[in-house]
Amino acid sequence: MPAEHDPAAALLRQRLAVVLFRPKFAENVGSTARACLNMGCERILLVDPRDYSPERAGPLATVHAEPLLDQARIFADLPSALASFTQVYGTTARLGGRRATILSPAQAARQIARQMLEGHDVALLFGPEDRGLTNVEIDRCSHLISIPTATPSVSLNLAQAVLLVLYECLLAARGQPSAIPKPVRTDLVTHTEQEALFTALQHLLTSIDVLPRSNPDYGMTRLRRMWHRLGLTRKEYSLVMGVCRQMQWAVDDRDPGR
Amino acid sequence: MPAEHDPAAALLRQRLAVVLFRPKFAENVGSTARACLNMGCERILLVDPRDYSPERAGPLATVHAEPLLDQARIFADLPSALASFTQVYGTTARLGGRRATILSPAQAARQIARQMLEGHDVALLFGPEDRGLTNVEIDRCSHLISIPTATPSVSLNLAQAVLLVLYECLLAARGQPSAIPKPVRTDLVTHTEQEALFTALQHLLTSIDVLPRSNPDYGMTRLRRMWHRLGLTRKEYSLVMGVCRQMQWAVDDRDPGR
Repeated sequence: MPAEHDPAAALLRQRLAVVLFRPKFAENVGSTARACLNMGCERILLVDPRDYSPERAGPLATVHAEPLLDQARIFADLPSALASFTQVYGTTARLGGRRATILSPAQAARQIARQMLEGHDVALLFGPEDRGLTNVEIDRCSHLISIPTATPSVSLNLAQAVLLVLYECLLAARGQPSAIPKPVRTDLVTHTEQEALFTALQHLLTSIDVLPRSNPDYGMTRLRRMWHRLGLTRKEYSLVMGVCRQMQWAVDDRDPGR
Repeated sequence: MPAEHDPAAALLRQRLAVVLFRPKFAENVGSTARACLNMGCERILLVDPRDYSPERAGPLATVHAEPLLDQARIFADLPSALASFTQVYGTTARLGGRRATILSPAQAARQIARQMLEGHDVALLFGPEDRGLTNVEIDRCSHLISIPTATPSVSLNLAQAVLLVLYECLLAARGQPSAIPKPVRTDLVTHTEQEALFTALQHLLTSIDVLPRSNPDYGMTRLRRMWHRLGLTRKEYSLVMGVCRQMQWAVDDRDPGR
């Protein structure tokens, strides 16, 4: 089926992006472009790539996927790359400790397909080849995906990880009852707006000593996770932001000498 | 879960092999080895590889998967590579004409998982990077798999195709109620035995002018397909072979002057 008559592929093209955080090898960016084209996700964002050169990436992309490399946008940092997305799925090989619920690629894909149909812009975030995403980047994700392998000690190649997640997304989009995207929604909360709320909350909670000033991050991770689970609308978000601001004023007013 | 405590991975290791038919680039053999290790299939067979060198394949396999390359067996032709397998799944991007029912990777994987548990040795056959399997190789397959993509005109990289099929096999094996393989069965018909039957049948059917002497292949493809669907036991196979032989004698006896 040509892509223009394939509503599932059209949905991925319109709503999904692959974000590579600090990729080390230009060749892997090239292979990723080829995998993206194969599965219908044509938007690639590179965040602070190490030593990137389109000349080294091109041959691995093959001539078909080179346009995806030409259109790939490069960002200096993660917040600007993720700014406009309303859902961010991070991929991780590690399963322990601080991390939120981890989805399999198929579970995540079903959820992503539904969200894309609802008008969400979804980013799939992949870490550097050698060490993956750290807790700092993980905290920015609304959901986490881990790819099952037979040998957990050995990692997948970056482009192969991208391929598997996109493959499941394409299958899930094709499995949706109707893969016709709804009109663009304006009531969804972007990544940048979410981060503004977390900053406000962290400021508030440290100023009333709920979070320790020395290390507020740990407590914030739990709050972030709760927030991501809630999936508030824009109206609810504005309400929470308003309450936050009011409380901060009250707290700042408490003792002008502090 | 370490591989030794993962019955699904153990099943793949014991029963499944990846057969690369005339791979063109040693680098792709290396990436394939890495994909195989990730998904727990450790047996790689190379058939008449073009210009293969372990030195060029090694870096792509990474140090972890190099043992798979060291153990990879090289065959001069397809019949000898497939000889001992009882199920052969070919992968194809083309869907038209002569081809039998085509399975999705997930459909094939569920069937493969069941067959492995029943004691079948299963080969996954992948064609050369540039042109895939031709009808000659397709005819030797008991089943065909096609990997869904967004852009049918653009092919997957070889190692990525291997990865996707193995990923589905691992998931399907993990989804089986009990992934404990049964004792080795001796009542299954190997690829070599099947081919002996096809040769006998073709000889018989051309000698009674059911198949045209000039081009017997076309009719044989349909017979092969029927046979693969039947999945006969060894006893039934012997019976059919016996009948074939008897009929051939009768036919040869018909007119000694022919």
